[in-house]
Amino acid sequence: MQNHTADIEDLKHIHLFASLDPRQLERVQRSMVVLHLEESQTLFEQGQRAERFYYVSEGQMKLFLLSPNGDEKVVEIIKAGHTFAEAVMFMETHRYPVTSQAIMPTTLLSFDSNVYLALLRESPATCLRLLGGMSMRLHWRIKEIDELTLQNATYRLVHFLIHELPPELEAGEADLRLDTPKNIIASRLSIKPETFSRILQSLARDGLLQVEGATVHILDVQRLRNYSAG
Amino acid sequence: MQNHTADIEDLKHIHLFASLDPRQLERVQRSMVVLHLEESQTLFEQGQRAERFYYVSEGQMKLFLLSPNGDEKVVEIIKAGHTFAEAVMFMETHRYPVTSQAIMPTTLLSFDSNVYLALLRESPATCLRLLGGMSMRLHWRIKEIDELTLQNATYRLVHFLIHELPPELEAGEADLRLDTPKNIIASRLSIKPETFSRILQSLARDGLLQVEGATVHILDVQRLRNYSAG
Repeated sequence: MQNHTADIEDLKHIHLFASLDPRQLERVQRSMVVLHLEESQTLFEQGQRAERFYYVSEGQMKLFLLSPNGDEKVVEIIKAGHTFAEAVMFMETHRYPVTSQAIMPTTLLSFDSNVYLALLRESPATCLRLLGGMSMRLHWRIKEIDELTLQNATYRLVHFLIHELPPELEAGEADLRLDTPKNIIASRLSIKPETFSRILQSLARDGLLQVEGATVHILDVQRLRNYSAG
Repeated sequence: MQNHTADIEDLKHIHLFASLDPRQLERVQRSMVVLHLEESQTLFEQGQRAERFYYVSEGQMKLFLLSPNGDEKVVEIIKAGHTFAEAVMFMETHRYPVTSQAIMPTTLLSFDSNVYLALLRESPATCLRLLGGMSMRLHWRIKEIDELTLQNATYRLVHFLIHELPPELEAGEADLRLDTPKNIIASRLSIKPETFSRILQSLARDGLLQVEGATVHILDVQRLRNYSAG
């Protein structure tokens, strides 16, 4: 962001504004201020009255709590493309629950909470559209978490299999007899039994292995090693 | 859920209802129906009018699209403790965009969308509280994704380091000279350069290694191997 403004078009990409009509967007834009923070500069402090919320255009912000003896407990890192302090505007206590500080040189768009809340209070339809958008975002996030969890579990399982192979075996086929019951292995790898089976099936579909009872027939050790290397 | 009801107290744990007052909760409860589905039983079909939304008490549902030639494209798996089809109720098209089917025997709580929407339309305050709850949930999810992404990247990096070690080296110290520049290694592992450095720092803090220029001094090969095994 070079100058002290942001286009209406830019604002529409911020999820809180995606369901606003052009006149509503204009009101939001009039309340907007662009801020440039230096590294380590504080934006607001825990307990301060919360009258604005923010969107990170560039850089990163950290949100933290201060313990009575002055220790920082980082609650969240806010990256570019995300908003923060918008949840507190919907709450009854209008005080920031955390302190916020720039991790690096950071550009923020700052918006007046009261202007935005007025828009929502005047228009239940806008409120509902926003709820729809947020519900969908929550579903996407949950899906993303599911996929990452599965990926993680796959890495652990493939790594376990490789670890069970003789280290000198670099390529070709290999049979691995799992002496430990699968549910025990799954638990050792912090994988749920149903996920464990799902991963084995998916590795079989990818042509990496075949499972016959307690034997895992690895079709290509080299490919399995590469798979795990990501 | 044994019987055909759910307590008001149970409903308050469903995020969509957390900000309702007792009278509003009662209205929601009166609209509720408990459904028991068999494995593979269809709940609703793509294109059907969307008049209800659901909470999974037990079991799992899959949401999928059907391609013109009849192939299933699974869009989402909904696990116990989550709602689905609530986003569509906030939208202008009141038609389910997907088909929904039980993956296993599944118990659902089914709610009337119009009853719930009426509550929100009558009370902007309820709407705002719900938005606050959803914003917070989005922040938690993003944080969770961040942590999982970092974990994943850590596995990949540790695995890469182990792979670079002579396979016969099972324990003790080892020096690894990284001939490839770190940003190239990072990119090969699909890790952002700043994340790459952050992981090395965190492994150093955990006493697993020390970095000096292009040399990674591994303090205990056995511990690094175990670390990667999860």
